Parts: sequence; C-alpha cells; structure tokens
Amino acid sequence: MGRARVAVAPRATDELTGAVVAGGGELVDATDADAIVWTDPAHPEALTELLTTSSATWIQLPFAGIEKFVAAGTIDDAHTWTCAKGIYGPSTAEHALALLLAAARRLNVHIRSATWLGRPGRGAPERRLGASTVAIVGGGGIGSSLIEMLRPLRTEVIVVNRSGDPVPGAARTVKVDSLVEVLGLADFVAIAAAATPETHRMFNATRFEAMKDDAWLINVARGSLVDTNGLVDALRAGTIGGAALDVTDPEPLPDGHPLFELANAIITPHVANTWDMALPVLAGLVERNVAAFGRGDPLEGLVDPALGY
Amino acid sequence: MGRARVAVAPRATDELTGAVVAGGGELVDATDADAIVWTDPAHPEALTELLTTSSATWIQLPFAGIEKFVAAGTIDDAHTWTCAKGIYGPSTAEHALALLLAAARRLNVHIRSATWLGRPGRGAPERRLGASTVAIVGGGGIGSSLIEMLRPLRTEVIVVNRSGDPVPGAARTVKVDSLVEVLGLADFVAIAAAATPETHRMFNATRFEAMKDDAWLINVARGSLVDTNGLVDALRAGTIGGAALDVTDPEPLPDGHPLFELANAIITPHVANTWDMALPVLAGLVERNVAAFGRGDPLEGLVDPALGY
Repeated sequence: MGRARVAVAPRATDELTGAVVAGGGELVDATDADAIVWTDPAHPEALTELLTTSSATWIQLPFAGIEKFVAAGTIDDAHTWTCAKGIYGPSTAEHALALLLAAARRLNVHIRSATWLGRPGRGAPERRLGASTVAIVGGGGIGSSLIEMLRPLRTEVIVVNRSGDPVPGAARTVKVDSLVEVLGLADFVAIAAAATPETHRMFNATRFEAMKDDAWLINVARGSLVDTNGLVDALRAGTIGGAALDVTDPEPLPDGHPLFELANAIITPHVANTWDMALPVLAGLVERNVAAFGRGDPLEGLVDPALGY
Repeated sequence: MGRARVAVAPRATDELTGAVVAGGGELVDATDADAIVWTDPAHPEALTELLTTSSATWIQLPFAGIEKFVAAGTIDDAHTWTCAKGIYGPSTAEHALALLLAAARRLNVHIRSATWLGRPGRGAPERRLGASTVAIVGGGGIGSSLIEMLRPLRTEVIVVNRSGDPVPGAARTVKVDSLVEVLGLADFVAIAAAATPETHRMFNATRFEAMKDDAWLINVARGSLVDTNGLVDALRAGTIGGAALDVTDPEPLPDGHPLFELANAIITPHVANTWDMALPVLAGLVERNVAAFGRGDPLEGLVDPALGY
C-alpha cells in the first residue's frame, strides 16, 4: 500500500512519532489514519471510543500484557492488533535477576538491618544463585532472556510451559501439568507467564505447599497469577521462604498491606520495565511494524484474541 | 617426591581432609608434615607459632585476601605459600552482581518502603544495568567472572588494572593512572582489587569528586580500599549516588555507624563468599595442589610476597 498514514495517540511522544517517520509512515490524526500507535496502557475504553471515529485497520498497543484491553472488550475482530510481547524480555528479566539475587543474598534482611549480621564459619544462610535450581514458569521473551542471564552463573534452570517443547538453555522443560513436581525441586520459582484465565491465581495454597520451605517466589509478570491472601499465609507460616514481587494483586498495593510488613517479602512497584526503559525498545518495534505495514508484510507481535495475548 | 604428608589445621573439616586423600596425600600432624592446609583466615599468629614446630615447606592458605598474614609477618621466604586467589571469583562476582542490580533497581529504597512508590509515565528513577557503564577496578578472578555475568545484560564494561593489558570481554581496559578519567564515565564502579599498600584508601574524597553524582560505588574486595569517612561525607552531600558494600573499614561495622542509617547505602556483612560457598571450591584446589606437590609440579595460587597477594 506504500506509505502508511499513522496516528500516535493519546500522547504523541517524540520517540514514537520519530519511529513512525523512520518507518516511512505519514503522521495523521486518528480519524484519517490507517493505523494507530496507542500509548496509554491504562485506558482501553478511551481507545474503544477513538476507534468509533477512526478509519484505522491496525492498532499497535504499547505493552506486552494486554489483559485489560481483552477484559474491556476493546480487542475485536474488526481490526488487526499487535502488542509489544517479547520485546521487553531483557529489561524485565534483568529485574527478575535482581530479585532472585536479592533473595539468594538476603538483601531483604541486610538492607533492613542496622547491625552487622555476619558470622564466621559454617551455616551462614546466604546462598549462591549459581548453585541453585530456578524454575521459570512461562517460556516467552522474559523467560528466554532470564535463561541467558543465568547461564554464566551456572544456575540449573527448569522451564514450565504450556507445550513442554524444550526451551534452549534450560536443563529441562516440562508441561504445566507437571508444575507441582517441579515446584518440589526449585530453590527459586520465577513467574514469567501472561495473565490469562488459565493462569489466574495459578499460585495458591496448594502450589505453595508443593514448594520447598526455603524456596522464594519471584513475580515480574502480573499480580493476578498469585493468590495474594494465600501467599501472605504461606509467608507467615513459613510454608515457603519468601516472595519478591514487582507486580501485585491488588496493584498498587495499599498502605498497611501485610506484604509491606513481612520480613521475608520484597516489593518493588512495577518497575521491571519502566516507560523510560520501554520507549526506545517500543520505538524500534513501531518503526519495523510501520515499514512492514507499508509494504504489506506480516506484522510483529500479532495478538491472538483467542489466547488473550 | 611421591606421597605428600599433609596436615589440615587448626580445624580438620571432612571436606578438606577428604581433598588431601583424594589428591594422594597422607594425613599427618603438623610436626611431621611436608605441607599444611591452614583453615583459619583470622589468626596468622597461630600459624606462625605452628610453623616453629613443623617440618612443612609448603603452606596452603584458605582465602584469597592474605593481607593479614602479610602484615603479621607470617608469610616468609623459608616456605612456599599458596592462597585461594582467583578461585572464589564466581561467588564473589555473583554478590557484586546482586549489589549492582540492587543499586540500579533501587532495592535500597523499595525494600525499606512501606508504601507503593511506583508512578506511571516518564522519569522513574530505576535504571537498566544493561544500559549502563560499569567500571571494574581490578582484573583478577572476581573481575573476569563479573564481566562474564554482565555480558548477557549488554552492560558496557571498562576495566581498570595495573598493567592496562586488555581483559577479555571488556569494552576497554585502562591503566590505573587513568582511574579518574574512567570514574567520570561510569554509572557504577565495582572494586575487585587486592588490598595492598598501593590500593589502600584508593577511593577517597578526590575519587568520589571524579565520579558522576548518580554513580554507585560497589565494594566486594576489602574495606581498606575505601576511605570510610570520606565515603560517608560523599553519600551525605550527594557527591555520588550511593554505595553498596560487602566489606567495610572498620569491619565489622559497629552499631550506630552512619552507613547503617544512610538511605543511599547498602551494607551486607562480608557474605559474598561464605565459608559454605568457599569450602567445595577450596577442597578442589587442595586436591589439585596436593597432587601437584606429590608429583613435584608447580602449585596453583602461588603467593608473591613482594606484591602481597
């Protein structure tokens, strides 16, 4: 079709308008657009509204997790939808690595301590992540980046995914049916799967019971994959060793929530992939997709409405 | 010489006596020994005393940093000395990576916060270590392990060493004369050098002034490389962004020390390479060295008394 007419809405940042132009697109208002690069991950209803007055046939969403847009009914069959799945793997996996190492090296204890807690000799509780087994639930972009980052540490990695198809770099890949068996082997369990009806509260009392009592749960995916009340109970009872969460349910976590008080919990406020980290990577995707759209080629990050991601 | 007669003292742990036997050695008392595997890193004077009644010609020290044994005059020309330099690189570098990521992802702030500090949009202060420049001071075992661990994150690494000889995996290697220039480029400065008269208080007010005002100092080597009072001043004044220290001067850090109170400091109590992490690695070295000693081959980890490591 040649030159794509593209709107960047609701906020036209320089990085994204620049990417449209670099991809050979022409910047237009949404009404006249062939495509919309949507920049607001929080308000699907505003996009639904915009589409009623737009000629656009392709919509680019800015984030990897689009469950809000699915739940709001914004994602429809009348348009082609792409999201940023996969491309934020490196930044999100880097945050998962930070949380894994913080748990292994007990930064939750040391950062809060106003006294020197070292002791010579045997029995110190700090662990080497490299001498541990990490189970990664979800074999997408975050999981494969995390595997790459764990390789020089010599960590043993077990991946749990839907298909059971081997993931490169993992010592083993198992189907999600075998989750409970794997939970019994892992020193650390990292959640890196999409939020779908299938994964909703996948981590509940039964799953915590299956984990080692000194294992840590790491979540950089979505809060809805964890039953928060069940987790608080498990942390209080010592059913598991601890939890390090960048995403929570509810999110944001309200003041006074037990997860802010527990000594064996680490909370970071959904900063694994901040907008500043995401924007340069998203701009690259927009440039590639605008160019592909102009040529009539397949787009990257196509959403499967049936799967919800 | 055939079978080496080896004493493990003052504490004969199963791992180390097993390593002597696996290396073909015979376990004997220190008096009758050809070699002593010394297990106590804190008491050089006890070793000096033991040597007055021992026939041993080779002494294996258990740790990489032997400055206490140099200062006490225990290291002499009458014996062959080996230490564990190099072999603890992976565990110590893993701790350095934990501290680097904690600093980049602001775990010092989030772990201490009882409220959700996330905010949508631009300007979040968390950083990607992979989009940063890390200067590593010291190109030995810790440094080369850390370079390997940073590679999948795509971090730019500049190594500062005595020779300036290029270190594999570093974007640049510069001589220590150019330290100040490199400090102006680094987002994170990781100290991984031996404690020697040359490196004593290498990081002082002048060096902090040369660093970026949002840069973090990481120390997993020895506390004596940092002027602690100068560091406290720099942290209070915002001359640098923060400090994450596994080793301190004085060590242990006394209760009430400002480094325990400062929001931009992370203290861990010398746990980068705990005795539990070290012992299996040390046992491997002891086995190899006992075997080499028995064959009359060169030993690994030979101490150069002139250099002090």
